[in-house]
Amino acid sequence: MRKNDQRRNALLDAAIEVLAEEGARGLTFRAVDAEAGTPVGTATNYFANRDDLLMQIAERVYQRWMPDEATWAAAEAGPQDKAKVTELMRETVGRVAGFRSGYLAMLELRLEATRRPELRAVLTERVRADMNANVAYHLKRGLPGDAISVKLLMLALNWLIVETLTLPGLFAPEEVDELVVKAVERSLAAT
Amino acid sequence: MRKNDQRRNALLDAAIEVLAEEGARGLTFRAVDAEAGTPVGTATNYFANRDDLLMQIAERVYQRWMPDEATWAAAEAGPQDKAKVTELMRETVGRVAGFRSGYLAMLELRLEATRRPELRAVLTERVRADMNANVAYHLKRGLPGDAISVKLLMLALNWLIVETLTLPGLFAPEEVDELVVKAVERSLAAT
Repeated sequence: MRKNDQRRNALLDAAIEVLAEEGARGLTFRAVDAEAGTPVGTATNYFANRDDLLMQIAERVYQRWMPDEATWAAAEAGPQDKAKVTELMRETVGRVAGFRSGYLAMLELRLEATRRPELRAVLTERVRADMNANVAYHLKRGLPGDAISVKLLMLALNWLIVETLTLPGLFAPEEVDELVVKAVERSLAAT
Repeated sequence: MRKNDQRRNALLDAAIEVLAEEGARGLTFRAVDAEAGTPVGTATNYFANRDDLLMQIAERVYQRWMPDEATWAAAEAGPQDKAKVTELMRETVGRVAGFRSGYLAMLELRLEATRRPELRAVLTERVRADMNANVAYHLKRGLPGDAISVKLLMLALNWLIVETLTLPGLFAPEEVDELVVKAVERSLAAT
């Protein structure tokens, strides 16, 4: 990776932490530099303006959510059955919720998108691409269920993650797991 | 309703609009007075502090989400079958998403709750009470499905509302309706 890209990613990672901790209104170039430990003025050299920064944050969060090689390999091992879908969904919920600041930053970006049409357009395409990729993967692997199964799982598990990250006392860990198991079981039903 | 309560609700309604439009950081007593058209200093007389205001906003949003008498009556009319659950879920999604600023304000409150333990405790109990009430209503009415069906529907339909409110270009209206229909069908399956 070029040195410039490393620095840009470090600034984006800092911006993610600022968004999660301070909210969208707290996200200034100065706050990003402070979080990244870079001299004041560094962030302004890497991003054309605040909209550009917001849009690049979204891309960076999705990049950091990507499964690693070992996770892809584990997904493709063994029978591609209902138990596999459960295993994949458990792993996904753990990975996505595990990058807590990234998830909270994405919620901040969605709220900011209600006020910024350009950001809304970029986020819409990013979320659509992710949804289409999940549906395509599911069908290509011959996993049970259909495109609607995948979409219903994305809907239910996203809100489950919202609950666990914002109101962690609502569901006990075993109830979270039961909801993942049942969401899989029922989303695959009648297909 | 006492005049004080009317004034308090008007201030809370103004605070909901400020939260939705400006985000949590934009919510000041001064901004609430400006939105409500009340003299500067009015809001500070009605709320002990900002935390108190945030907690009362949550209660007010849920109050405004409550179905009216006609909606309750329509819910109890006719066979309490799968078609009825679909009708109820369509109506609920329309009513909850229809109070757009209230939903966005609740998302802002959830993000603020990650930073404020007292608000988090209040929201957790409010959300839990709502979930328990939905489960109890479903079972009492003898509707098909079980407690897990209700929880899975709440999960999936909440995120569907998030998508429609924050990224309205993602799903066409007919796809939103299809997802509601399928969410009901599958959440009730295998029970």
